[in-house]
Amino acid sequence: MIYLDYAAATPVDDRVMAAMQPFLATEFYNPSAAYMAALAVREKYEEARHDIAKVIGAVKAEIIMTAGATESINLALRSFEHVLTTAIEHPAVLGCVGSGDIVNVDGGGRVDLADLRAKITDATELISVGYANSEIGVVQPIKEIARIVQDVRADRLERGVATPIYFHTDASAAAGMLELGVARLGVDMMTLNAGKCYGPKQVGCLYVRAGVKLRPAVCGGGQEMGLRSGTENVAGAIGFAAALKIAEKKRKVETVRLGKMRDDLERYLIGKSNVKDAPGKHFRTLPVKINGDCKHRLPNILNFSIPGLDGERAVFALDFAGVMVATGSACAANKGLRSHVLTAIGLDDRTADGSIRSSLGRGTTREEMEETKKILAQVLPSELALSQE
Amino acid sequence: MIYLDYAAATPVDDRVMAAMQPFLATEFYNPSAAYMAALAVREKYEEARHDIAKVIGAVKAEIIMTAGATESINLALRSFEHVLTTAIEHPAVLGCVGSGDIVNVDGGGRVDLADLRAKITDATELISVGYANSEIGVVQPIKEIARIVQDVRADRLERGVATPIYFHTDASAAAGMLELGVARLGVDMMTLNAGKCYGPKQVGCLYVRAGVKLRPAVCGGGQEMGLRSGTENVAGAIGFAAALKIAEKKRKVETVRLGKMRDDLERYLIGKSNVKDAPGKHFRTLPVKINGDCKHRLPNILNFSIPGLDGERAVFALDFAGVMVATGSACAANKGLRSHVLTAIGLDDRTADGSIRSSLGRGTTREEMEETKKILAQVLPSELALSQE
Repeated sequence: MIYLDYAAATPVDDRVMAAMQPFLATEFYNPSAAYMAALAVREKYEEARHDIAKVIGAVKAEIIMTAGATESINLALRSFEHVLTTAIEHPAVLGCVGSGDIVNVDGGGRVDLADLRAKITDATELISVGYANSEIGVVQPIKEIARIVQDVRADRLERGVATPIYFHTDASAAAGMLELGVARLGVDMMTLNAGKCYGPKQVGCLYVRAGVKLRPAVCGGGQEMGLRSGTENVAGAIGFAAALKIAEKKRKVETVRLGKMRDDLERYLIGKSNVKDAPGKHFRTLPVKINGDCKHRLPNILNFSIPGLDGERAVFALDFAGVMVATGSACAANKGLRSHVLTAIGLDDRTADGSIRSSLGRGTTREEMEETKKILAQVLPSELALSQE
Repeated sequence: MIYLDYAAATPVDDRVMAAMQPFLATEFYNPSAAYMAALAVREKYEEARHDIAKVIGAVKAEIIMTAGATESINLALRSFEHVLTTAIEHPAVLGCVGSGDIVNVDGGGRVDLADLRAKITDATELISVGYANSEIGVVQPIKEIARIVQDVRADRLERGVATPIYFHTDASAAAGMLELGVARLGVDMMTLNAGKCYGPKQVGCLYVRAGVKLRPAVCGGGQEMGLRSGTENVAGAIGFAAALKIAEKKRKVETVRLGKMRDDLERYLIGKSNVKDAPGKHFRTLPVKINGDCKHRLPNILNFSIPGLDGERAVFALDFAGVMVATGSACAANKGLRSHVLTAIGLDDRTADGSIRSSLGRGTTREEMEETKKILAQVLPSELALSQE
């Protein structure tokens, strides 16, 4: 079986498992306890927090550990009433805009900066734009948005408007793929998710720049500086730190490696493969459309549509033939709904329903990709024919 | 080192680790994905949910997986405005009473049922009383409270009062110690925590009886029947189910075993040890007071006070001598605050500050307990003397 759904879930790296193990079995102490063995655990936990902070160029006190991206996003957004975001965001973001508004994206999924500027009012407290979209891979102009936020701040200061404005980005899909330095990006808050970068599931964090005031997400024992109560997930945090460090270390080599393989598959699908005897000929007759901005895109994601194809049935057929891919975002997939992302970038229903997302990852090999081409060439034309019957 | 702080944290059972492992490494698929390998993972996840439900006599659809007790409590309580609870509850409960009220407890920590009755108004929507208190071990009369709730329902029905009233219990400390059948107990909601019963930390669930309507805790992908979004913690849920099944299977034997050892230590501490040559003589001169209702108490918890002792320093001294114990609830311990539980049961400051909690668990042996007696006899008298200097 060839796994090409790394954007939905990643296996826990062996080194991450090894780092976590002692904190499940023997060093299991509650980090809030007073004895030395617990203090040692507390120290390791804080070290993990420090390591995570370091990867993104933050300091320890700016990292709030959470149970994953959904919780981080809720923690970041629910403290604010007027939130601006885009229509291609994660459902957690779209569910928390309060009295805010949705900013347009173009056909590639990139945020419309002029529309963003136009929609910022004096009531706007937060802008939340995902760094990279897990469904179509589009990478947003984070630095440009940060600059707009800076301008708004300067303008508000001049006009004596006291409402602060902050910028949050969900970088779950970006970890290990894009540069994460929060200062260089200019973000005030950043969501990260261990489960998407070869760490444990239901572990994440929210970077909160010193000075940004949030409301606690839950009431309780007051852990995580009062913002996120609950006995600390020590093993999870340590696994997350290990995973993030590995992802960052591998980033440059891995993005080149995956990008090449992704581009090769793309060329093949759109019939531009220059290998003479490749089975690409099958696709020359198929109307393959690539979804997501091709210039600003994660190197590991290839989302394409064949209008008229039944994407869901194609996923089953491809699975049967040996390739695991997706038709929409993992969260939307089991509800039988059309992807809100594909609709937002302007795809008509036929094109959206005929979409396939393949996402490459650390385990992906050249051999797997060659095999994938063959399987796609074998399955998709007949699936399209069946769908159109 | 002798660990006597099982109420703060438990090690992950080897069988639980073994059950979780595959779902971290190889069966890591997102259970919302459409391919067969993911559907198999989804099935295992739902099987875990079923297993948890079975232990407490519920059905699968009544179990909402969460990231631990704090989150479960918040999910249960935040849907209601007028909540009645007791002063010895977990901070998460006390932080979510809304416009509700606090019901009195007696000197042993048992809820005052007459006061509870008196404080229920037509506005009361929820009663939340912990099944067993993790700090002093007191077990509450859950069935009696459930009967009161039934009476109130009948009375409201008769009078045409439409406001529903529900009963939630935090059973985190009760798992593996007390009977958990939700129907027999008569509760509408129950919080459970894997991290306190030899399962992974930051995994828990909320039992929600069919018909009880809750507000989602977070916005997102709509997992857990829309109540708790976020990619499912498959390994965690499977570990939790395994842990709960083991705890329930061991319950009867284990409670007898731990109860005997706990009672023996208690007799020793209050100078009633009938072993002639035991080092108990040291304690005959110390004013040891047992905290928590002695008749209705978890078999594994012994909370005692020596008025005048500096409990915090005593914990350090005992740690140095080889025994890990606590002075308050794990959540309160690292904030330098006096335990709200001990204050609520009427202890004066000197007595509360001189408290020690020892909590026994699966790894506790007779040999450890004999050694513990010796260490307590050695450390506490001199610590008391030092504290009084």
